[in-house]
Amino acid sequence: MQKITSLAKRRGFVFPGSEIYGGLANSWDYGPLGIELKNNIKQLWWKRFVQSRDDMVGLDASLIMNPKVWEASGHLATFSDPLVECKKCHTRFRADSIDINAQCAKCGAKKQFTEAKQFNLMLKTFLGPAEEQANTVYLRPEIAQAMFVNFKQVLDTTRRRLPFGIASQGRVFRNEITPGNFTFRTREFDLMELEYFVEEKEWEKWFEYWQKEMKEWITKDLGIDPKKVHEIEIPKEDRAHYSKRTVDFEYDYPFGQKELYGLAYRANFDLKNHEKNSGQNLKYRDPETGEEFLPHVIEPTFGLDRSVLATLLDAYYEDGERVVLKLPSKLAPYKAAVFPLLKNKPELVKLARKIYDDLRKDMMVAWDDRGNIGKRYFAQDEIGTPACITVDFDSLEKGDVTIRNRDTAKQERVKIDKLTECLNV
Amino acid sequence: MQKITSLAKRRGFVFPGSEIYGGLANSWDYGPLGIELKNNIKQLWWKRFVQSRDDMVGLDASLIMNPKVWEASGHLATFSDPLVECKKCHTRFRADSIDINAQCAKCGAKKQFTEAKQFNLMLKTFLGPAEEQANTVYLRPEIAQAMFVNFKQVLDTTRRRLPFGIASQGRVFRNEITPGNFTFRTREFDLMELEYFVEEKEWEKWFEYWQKEMKEWITKDLGIDPKKVHEIEIPKEDRAHYSKRTVDFEYDYPFGQKELYGLAYRANFDLKNHEKNSGQNLKYRDPETGEEFLPHVIEPTFGLDRSVLATLLDAYYEDGERVVLKLPSKLAPYKAAVFPLLKNKPELVKLARKIYDDLRKDMMVAWDDRGNIGKRYFAQDEIGTPACITVDFDSLEKGDVTIRNRDTAKQERVKIDKLTECLNV
Repeated sequence: MQKITSLAKRRGFVFPGSEIYGGLANSWDYGPLGIELKNNIKQLWWKRFVQSRDDMVGLDASLIMNPKVWEASGHLATFSDPLVECKKCHTRFRADSIDINAQCAKCGAKKQFTEAKQFNLMLKTFLGPAEEQANTVYLRPEIAQAMFVNFKQVLDTTRRRLPFGIASQGRVFRNEITPGNFTFRTREFDLMELEYFVEEKEWEKWFEYWQKEMKEWITKDLGIDPKKVHEIEIPKEDRAHYSKRTVDFEYDYPFGQKELYGLAYRANFDLKNHEKNSGQNLKYRDPETGEEFLPHVIEPTFGLDRSVLATLLDAYYEDGERVVLKLPSKLAPYKAAVFPLLKNKPELVKLARKIYDDLRKDMMVAWDDRGNIGKRYFAQDEIGTPACITVDFDSLEKGDVTIRNRDTAKQERVKIDKLTECLNV
Repeated sequence: MQKITSLAKRRGFVFPGSEIYGGLANSWDYGPLGIELKNNIKQLWWKRFVQSRDDMVGLDASLIMNPKVWEASGHLATFSDPLVECKKCHTRFRADSIDINAQCAKCGAKKQFTEAKQFNLMLKTFLGPAEEQANTVYLRPEIAQAMFVNFKQVLDTTRRRLPFGIASQGRVFRNEITPGNFTFRTREFDLMELEYFVEEKEWEKWFEYWQKEMKEWITKDLGIDPKKVHEIEIPKEDRAHYSKRTVDFEYDYPFGQKELYGLAYRANFDLKNHEKNSGQNLKYRDPETGEEFLPHVIEPTFGLDRSVLATLLDAYYEDGERVVLKLPSKLAPYKAAVFPLLKNKPELVKLARKIYDDLRKDMMVAWDDRGNIGKRYFAQDEIGTPACITVDFDSLEKGDVTIRNRDTAKQERVKIDKLTECLNV
């Protein structure tokens, strides 16, 4: 873990948030390479699950919604953790994480904990000039509700038939008591969520379908080793009260086997509550039978920051002194790097620069002319660049260059005008 | 304006936020077509200003930063509007928007306004279990500060030389007293910002360079009529105190000529303040001369929601009964629509479906088999689809289809295997 955190910081994937001011409670900022990796995952997901499908549409809602949404969803009443407080130093702890007969981890006081009290995990703020109850609103702790609240609008404007889904990507906030483990648990993070609406009698079929889709995304698109991914059937007593079946996808992080994604069958719990609380008819009308009913929902949830973290961890590989990020080409921040063999030979620099400029029209390309070629290879391996292109004296005469492969470290000569197709992006 | 709002809602570009609960203070959600348009603008901007440039890198920071950031930037002290309150009904108004000797617009009381009081526009919330001063944090009102706070980290990891820039896209929050005019002024919105770092002596040159770049983006990439775009030199007394030159790009909205984008020269105001407040050395070291100094900053700011709004307004066109969104192809949600001439002829549907499925691997494509062809054309014109492809009986024999152009309404026959190149996306 230390290796990834250090690499992420040194090469500009992830910086500690507000670092010059001493940071802020496990917050992290994505640097120049991190944002490219994150965007690549985000866009690949959108392409796979929305754009190339016939049964999925997108939605992008406000982060702040009418507070009645959270009343209907149950978040105001139940989205909370039990906390205990040390009576001496007033530090608070998650009740389920400590033994209340033990000492306070902060001040050492013994058996000084209060009774457990529920603590809501939604962040609240005030819209409008006065900080009063009437103006209290919440930063969304999940995107899901935005898709239920807009279900009727989407249905009316797109005239979709079941089964179909709504997809959304964006920021959510949870006032976690104990954030930690790098970007694994933070108080603001990005989710990618699907709400897939089906007829009740078909829920089991679609649950299994989405379980397979998620597994394929993790192992094929993110390139994560299937042996490190575990599908855990969540027993009834640990499931959210609305869920009749939940499967968690867990990954072998260096700090243990923990959640990566979740897949839940939410029945028609949410639409039913919003229909009741809003007084609006949210039913779907079957165009063939004329029957009206509330669809049931299968919900695959993908954490974007956890996707980035697991992808980085799984791609990390050491080969002697060489550190390599074996990222899938589609996800790598740079698809290629271009080097002139020597920086003080203008004719080499000129040709290398031309290749660099041409390639950059289609893809992200790095430029490096510092130090020796071996060092430049190592520097690109470490950030996952799949191909390094070196322009040497032969290039000037023969119009070809050396392409060196990140994973095999093998080199081959390729004609300059065949470069784009060779790079396979 | 009414026409665009209504079209946006009817076709799924933009819905009122939390509509089933009666909405929430001028908040808006992007529907299935709106999110595609918004993403297309966002990604085109990133490609143009980050990925295809050699002197720009990206950053994606937490929305909540250490509150010391806002102390250093001056936002805690000065990012505020003066408000007056009606003593009778306690409604608050922006002091500069009313005549304090007039009646209250809400209750009609005369001359009952309090003295003007400063009202900070940042939304605040609390991180951690206790709602107390020590836990107060703010939702960012701009992205800019994240780029200044991470300036040194970016410099150290990318080893860039001046001039170079940092780019960022994301959500910001401002507790506006009077949001309104559809998506023009809302309390949460997306910005796309560039901070371009230069040597002081070159600021004028780079200011002019970015002014041209912004104009070109507006007129070429967004396809907005140059006659409706006005570059306004902001006089000294109206500029932010740190800015030595500001140019606003204004657009002729139906509700008046108002701000679209802004371009400001911020000198080294921000880096200087953060250096002073953090105690960290934020200086750039010239690799040739060894000289250390704080770079100066040119800041082009692009509102993403205003980009979407101005693009929609400018693309809107009525041609008799026909309503057309003349969106640039790159921005249109669907690049093409595919129709079988008749829905009850399986051989037509089968071929049309095949074309639809093939095209959808590369681009967003719509499917429509309802009503007559004329109605389907109108439905696609209204959402800006550049091309409609109809599969008819000739298609079965000759392997060609009719492509009908959105802007000219002209039709031509094209071979099925030449379709992708014809669509020009």
